[in-house]
Amino acid sequence: MNDKRNKLALLTDLYELTMMQGYYLTNPEQQAVFEVFFRRQPFNSGFAIFAGLDPLIDTIVDMRFSDDDINYLKSLKMFGEQFLDYLRSYQFFGDICAMKEGSVVFPNEPLIRVQANLLEAQLLESIVLNMINFQTLVATKAARVVAAANGGAVIEFGLRRAHGIDGAISATRAAYIGGASATSNVMAGALFNIPPKGTMAHSWVMSFDNELRAFERYAELYPDNCVLLIDTYDTLKTGLPNAIKVFKKLKKKGYTGFGIRLDSGDLEYLSKRAREMLNKNNLEEVKIYASNELDEWIINQIVKNGAPIDAWGVGSKIVTADKDSSLTGVYKLAAKTDGKELHPVIKISNNPEKITNPGIKNILRFYDRDGMIQADLIYLEEEENELMRIVEKKQPITFHHPSLEHVRFNCAGYSKATILLTPVVIKGKRCVEPVSLQEIQAYAMKEMNRLDQTYKRLINPHIYKVSISTCLKTLKTNLIKNMGLGTGD
Amino acid sequence: MNDKRNKLALLTDLYELTMMQGYYLTNPEQQAVFEVFFRRQPFNSGFAIFAGLDPLIDTIVDMRFSDDDINYLKSLKMFGEQFLDYLRSYQFFGDICAMKEGSVVFPNEPLIRVQANLLEAQLLESIVLNMINFQTLVATKAARVVAAANGGAVIEFGLRRAHGIDGAISATRAAYIGGASATSNVMAGALFNIPPKGTMAHSWVMSFDNELRAFERYAELYPDNCVLLIDTYDTLKTGLPNAIKVFKKLKKKGYTGFGIRLDSGDLEYLSKRAREMLNKNNLEEVKIYASNELDEWIINQIVKNGAPIDAWGVGSKIVTADKDSSLTGVYKLAAKTDGKELHPVIKISNNPEKITNPGIKNILRFYDRDGMIQADLIYLEEEENELMRIVEKKQPITFHHPSLEHVRFNCAGYSKATILLTPVVIKGKRCVEPVSLQEIQAYAMKEMNRLDQTYKRLINPHIYKVSISTCLKTLKTNLIKNMGLGTGD
Repeated sequence: MNDKRNKLALLTDLYELTMMQGYYLTNPEQQAVFEVFFRRQPFNSGFAIFAGLDPLIDTIVDMRFSDDDINYLKSLKMFGEQFLDYLRSYQFFGDICAMKEGSVVFPNEPLIRVQANLLEAQLLESIVLNMINFQTLVATKAARVVAAANGGAVIEFGLRRAHGIDGAISATRAAYIGGASATSNVMAGALFNIPPKGTMAHSWVMSFDNELRAFERYAELYPDNCVLLIDTYDTLKTGLPNAIKVFKKLKKKGYTGFGIRLDSGDLEYLSKRAREMLNKNNLEEVKIYASNELDEWIINQIVKNGAPIDAWGVGSKIVTADKDSSLTGVYKLAAKTDGKELHPVIKISNNPEKITNPGIKNILRFYDRDGMIQADLIYLEEEENELMRIVEKKQPITFHHPSLEHVRFNCAGYSKATILLTPVVIKGKRCVEPVSLQEIQAYAMKEMNRLDQTYKRLINPHIYKVSISTCLKTLKTNLIKNMGLGTGD
Repeated sequence: MNDKRNKLALLTDLYELTMMQGYYLTNPEQQAVFEVFFRRQPFNSGFAIFAGLDPLIDTIVDMRFSDDDINYLKSLKMFGEQFLDYLRSYQFFGDICAMKEGSVVFPNEPLIRVQANLLEAQLLESIVLNMINFQTLVATKAARVVAAANGGAVIEFGLRRAHGIDGAISATRAAYIGGASATSNVMAGALFNIPPKGTMAHSWVMSFDNELRAFERYAELYPDNCVLLIDTYDTLKTGLPNAIKVFKKLKKKGYTGFGIRLDSGDLEYLSKRAREMLNKNNLEEVKIYASNELDEWIINQIVKNGAPIDAWGVGSKIVTADKDSSLTGVYKLAAKTDGKELHPVIKISNNPEKITNPGIKNILRFYDRDGMIQADLIYLEEEENELMRIVEKKQPITFHHPSLEHVRFNCAGYSKATILLTPVVIKGKRCVEPVSLQEIQAYAMKEMNRLDQTYKRLINPHIYKVSISTCLKTLKTNLIKNMGLGTGD
């Protein structure tokens, strides 16, 4: 990587720049509001965990074009000197509101709202989506795996199958937010203060003349953290008996931090047999680690069947978000100035679910009397004071289905409601303290605890209600009517 | 990104470092040979395209531990001063042979062979797999998409759904190797000299009061590269008629570089209707671009049905390698010294297909009289001279199935055979010139042309034969016998 890549201004789709030049030459004063949201839960999950915000804020506020960047753009012969001069002094001066990182989030909710000059807001589209789509996806996958492990530790092991260098590093960050307790990735450990963990590879065992000697040597070197990989030759016939010999000696010397790792074969069968043999040898303290292409579905089955596995090494399936390798988050225009005033805009589609919610919006999240989250309401900023008055009195509020006409309900009996989007950047400056990854993880775990179990089922989960307010519903209906367009292909 | 990340020594799994310390304190002179291979084609593909080599070579030869790296490792309290001193002066001094980047490759073939001190060879495992697994996967996906497009251009559009920063940049590199002709990613364009391309977003159209004005303004700004996105309101009722008005004016002024982009709806239906309307207006030169969650299967269907689409924008499905988000490449010990001599080693498994091929190996690729590739033979280095004598005389050679006993055939009637693994690093120094991405792409395209159509079918392709030589077969059988192990779980 060269210097250029430390500044991420060029990490954008070309059309952002050609459109920016167009805005610059057409109406450089235009202001706009964009919102990030996704339309569909990944993995058919009942929830997602919002991640990627903290590094995104730094990226946005620090973004500048270097001389090399400008020279490269000049070489493309698409950009005039005037616009390149603008880029030379480019800096983001707008405002950004966002969900708190680690929040439980749902389809169609604005996760981030950017209000800025249209040029500045447009440039951010690609980098915002790159960072938020991926980290939210991986944090969600990790949270599902952690939930399946039902208290067992989940260690993220994905570096070798991750999508490139940052594919690994940012996946480790997101997996930790989702509840992984450690990582094998040393660099990510160093960057984010995540405990790095590891056991041994088959090559360690194979580099010795026999398995027992390989285990003995490892125990001499790492007596207080001695996790032995027992499947190089034959798990139950050689690996486990050799490991037991080593653990007995270690135990005599007063050590207790040992474990075995199962990396092939049937993990339920092998873990049960291994636990029996270990216990028969008075080695109840030996932890059992399991790995080998694990995901939330495999872990869930094995855990439900009572396999005595203490920790799960999960690699590729978390870091590549297996089964749904991208979150389809989008960045859509919600309002623009016409003269001085911001006016709501709408994107029409033949598919009613793809019609956007117009206007500058926020979300109210309602809690029940047990502190569990109940339903979310997307509303227009202009109705916030009125809504908060109603909320204070705990009066019922009408929730409308975001696309189906006449589908609505009254939300009542809630204990409180909180506003989800709060400012993180004001006039181009970060207005919130950086948050440690440990705090973000703790927040995500708190959020998961506020979510009823029915939303966390792996298959066919309860669908959480995200609705729109009466004002937003009316605005949307009127704007669609005003377009006066047909619905043919 | 900070300085630390420019040096990738810490981008490794922790166990590589704990094992290295173990080797260092046990047998620091031991030499080893590791090989990279994968066991299963991604996407049920009939072929894969080897990618990621050139940047990997630079990473390996430049790898050093910084003072910060050493201080971090020290803080973990797992490593002794002696070993940390070794890391302070760490440098790779070994030899590496590899396939040519862009080669067509198949399961079980060594793609890269590392011969070095065991410590140095062990450290490379994680980074080698990270770079090769991902880029090979994406190059393969891109080659499948390009084959499906059947001559239509494929533009890689994946930045916003890619797995982080490098997930995007290295995916763009790999997609280009697999045959993509351009990218939307400006930074990757700058780094690798790939043409950056783009059209417009819905936000461009929506930032104007009406669609026609948005198109007209775009045409004024970019008259010689005017691709209009026509689905913001209604593709055929407003988008296309407005675009036709604009193109007619442009045409009168002598411009010809225009196109429309379809980003929703049924692409076959819309492209056929749009082509008719464009041609009726004497606008045969207008190109039709299509995008919207495309992959090789969707493109294949639409192309076979005769949709008049000239260029395909493919994003998430290429850069995230949808349907198989990781290549399961592994890095396995093949030989180690015992005293001075290197001896073959084998990794046993209860699953016969997971038993490794022992020893220091290379591959001969056999061509038929038309220059098409016919079959590959994995052999032991020690038999190379003898094999090449037979090849020179074009005598038949026995090919053995890599895991099934008694399954073999005689390869005869070949026109030539070439050795696939060649040196790229000797004694820690790069011994091949860096290759431009354009040359690698050209080589991959040449390789694809040498591969019979039957191997390129999307579904149920012809399985290419990768066999082992008689000597390798004998060695493998003897080593398994010598282990004398059972096969129970």
